[in-house]
Amino acid sequence: MAKTTVQSLEELFEKREYRALREVFSQMNNIDLARLLEELPTERAVLAFRTLPKDAEMDVFAELDAETQHHIIAGMSEKEVAAVMEDLAVDDAVDMLEELPATLVKKVLKLASPETRAQINQFLRYPEDSAGSIMTAEFTDLHSMLVEDAIKRIRRVGEDRETIYTCYVMDDQRHLDGVVTVKDLLLAQDGEKVENLMEPDVISVQTTSDQEEAVRIMVKYDLISLPVVDGENRLVGIVTVDDAVDVLREEDTEDFEIMNAMAPSERPYLKTGVFTLARNRFGWLLILMVSAMFTGSILGHYEPIYVTLPLLVTFIPMLTGTGGNAGSQSSTMIIRGIALGEVRLGDFFTVLWKEMRISVLVGVVLAIVNFVRMLIFYPGSGLVSLTVSLALVGAVLFAKVIGGTLPILAKACRLDPALLAAPVITTVVDALTLVLYFNLARVLLL
Amino acid sequence: MAKTTVQSLEELFEKREYRALREVFSQMNNIDLARLLEELPTERAVLAFRTLPKDAEMDVFAELDAETQHHIIAGMSEKEVAAVMEDLAVDDAVDMLEELPATLVKKVLKLASPETRAQINQFLRYPEDSAGSIMTAEFTDLHSMLVEDAIKRIRRVGEDRETIYTCYVMDDQRHLDGVVTVKDLLLAQDGEKVENLMEPDVISVQTTSDQEEAVRIMVKYDLISLPVVDGENRLVGIVTVDDAVDVLREEDTEDFEIMNAMAPSERPYLKTGVFTLARNRFGWLLILMVSAMFTGSILGHYEPIYVTLPLLVTFIPMLTGTGGNAGSQSSTMIIRGIALGEVRLGDFFTVLWKEMRISVLVGVVLAIVNFVRMLIFYPGSGLVSLTVSLALVGAVLFAKVIGGTLPILAKACRLDPALLAAPVITTVVDALTLVLYFNLARVLLL
Repeated sequence: MAKTTVQSLEELFEKREYRALREVFSQMNNIDLARLLEELPTERAVLAFRTLPKDAEMDVFAELDAETQHHIIAGMSEKEVAAVMEDLAVDDAVDMLEELPATLVKKVLKLASPETRAQINQFLRYPEDSAGSIMTAEFTDLHSMLVEDAIKRIRRVGEDRETIYTCYVMDDQRHLDGVVTVKDLLLAQDGEKVENLMEPDVISVQTTSDQEEAVRIMVKYDLISLPVVDGENRLVGIVTVDDAVDVLREEDTEDFEIMNAMAPSERPYLKTGVFTLARNRFGWLLILMVSAMFTGSILGHYEPIYVTLPLLVTFIPMLTGTGGNAGSQSSTMIIRGIALGEVRLGDFFTVLWKEMRISVLVGVVLAIVNFVRMLIFYPGSGLVSLTVSLALVGAVLFAKVIGGTLPILAKACRLDPALLAAPVITTVVDALTLVLYFNLARVLLL
Repeated sequence: MAKTTVQSLEELFEKREYRALREVFSQMNNIDLARLLEELPTERAVLAFRTLPKDAEMDVFAELDAETQHHIIAGMSEKEVAAVMEDLAVDDAVDMLEELPATLVKKVLKLASPETRAQINQFLRYPEDSAGSIMTAEFTDLHSMLVEDAIKRIRRVGEDRETIYTCYVMDDQRHLDGVVTVKDLLLAQDGEKVENLMEPDVISVQTTSDQEEAVRIMVKYDLISLPVVDGENRLVGIVTVDDAVDVLREEDTEDFEIMNAMAPSERPYLKTGVFTLARNRFGWLLILMVSAMFTGSILGHYEPIYVTLPLLVTFIPMLTGTGGNAGSQSSTMIIRGIALGEVRLGDFFTVLWKEMRISVLVGVVLAIVNFVRMLIFYPGSGLVSLTVSLALVGAVLFAKVIGGTLPILAKACRLDPALLAAPVITTVVDALTLVLYFNLARVLLL
């Protein structure tokens, strides 16, 4: 499979060889086609989309990024738009609408059939980041029936369903009664009842559940689809594993960004403008700069000490740096543990006690290394070495205790634990460490 | 589904009510059972395992952590161990063997049948973190045949297969010819040939491919299983989506840990001992402490300057802090972009140019805020304010350029980009910033 690139198509576009283009496209995977269309200049992309084989059109469209979808929709006749709305899966249609400009949304919605419009409106009401917002309505439903009838039904309706591999058994009021896999059905004898094969204890989430919760359950139980029910246990959709994986990656990316003092963004780095990137980064940098000024003003209080003993200044980067690194180690492990569902609120004191012991181990060994090094490089400064070494133990202790426990407290206050990560903790730890350092110096050295 | 806890079972164990226990277990999901067994004291866990319904035994065993598996295996008769080895999927057996003590591995392998042993030995040879090491050999294979025969074959062999939903079509030499889903087969007419339904352009990886590469492909193409072939394109296994998701989470966790100056670990925080945690954190803290000492000794060179103008010292935390945060923002975005396959080596200059422009925007605005604040709080120190503000722009520029490009260079040198993240970059940026700061001070203030 040679890679088809934008450049290799340029000549075909120039010469308007649409038949050859269609030939190239028909050899390609839908997802590669979507990525290719996104890279083409707007007009070419619209043209290329019209050249796609009919059966691939909607699958490629659903995969496109919002911008390219927008351009293609804008260039369509009303009839074409109406057809797109009917052919797209409801969740894909909703994803598109959420990104389109409001005026275009109105126009597009008017062109959809009343049933489609009702379904879309229903989906649009689910809160952002809820299970409802990432589910699809195209699941395979079965009822009380024989295995062979179930297989017949799957053969009849399967084409339009997102997945046929897990089927949901419902009663007349659409209450979720059980779940059965195609594997179970295929491996069963004809004449067997679906009710006898299905698993009645269905693992499900509500439309309003957090999407992270839904994904965590899917990962824990190795599910390839998860049913989403409303308040009355009526099945309204499923989350499929491919969408769950996307959520997983987005949530992890968001944690990486928030933990490193950025406003989270959903667009890839290379596709985000310089101004947006700068804006996402500016806010936290400003807040942290201002708080570091306070740390600085604390330092100002001890001016008489470091003017008398200027050597003390040269150990500040080492003390604050080590505190910062020690703190980010702890906060990272705890934030990640919370995200993976391994660390809970109830573990607060376990974490506190564990981090205290780790601090003592790590802090004391680092302090000994530092003490010996200072004795060698600054001979005769035994008391200064002691001051710096003691402050070092304090820095590691402050950092690990605060770094380990603050994310749990944040979680308890329903804040994002990642918010109170390294940069915020560093600022606090820096201040504490400097106060300790210069007070030790005052007692031991002056 | 009421949660079954270790405590709620205590009484049943005390009274030796094994029938009641078996009743409780038969109501539970295999994965919940595995988590429960892991939490029980060793003897109880072995007892509970023997109480499990026969059909759940192996599925629960495959889900257990290495420690609990070890205890249960150790308490088994040779005949029981032999049965376990035959019933476990090869990849699960291999995962277990990799964690067992060497003496036990020898004993266990001797008890396996020659065929199983040969397969296990084959799997054990795949390099760690390769696609071969995470694949399973239990895939559904089809050959040149009619649809109805294919379905019959699936019904016959499906029970033992990890997934039947994607079937692989092979020729007599086990070369991978195509892929066909059960959905395609079910929706097709009887009498149709499998060769006409299958997709001949199969997306696959090699046994030696990196597991991250395999997972990236699965995520990109929304696959629920990915074929793994040997050097001659012979199908040897598949990676299933549930294992891929586990790899994804592990890789992300590893990135979080490495980026925050820790040796990566595979065990959850709460299950890791204090000494192991301390050891994982100590190495980088030591390296970074020593490099921060060099930063400190740079500071020592400028002692005459800050003894003359001690006010300068109070801005050091703000300058190095802002540099550190600005750098970790950039390195995080690029490291994450590389992990997601969005940023490549070829993007080096794009990233460089983008980060330079972001630095100027962010740096200049921060510098203005700082300049105004200093004019207010330190009236009459216009030149000091200017010095600090100019150094601030420099800090942000150094940080973002180095933070954005070093991870790409690391990737080019086949190092883990996450290694050169925030802590390492901070040390370099700190040193550069301080040199700039005091040289500006020398020129502008002395």
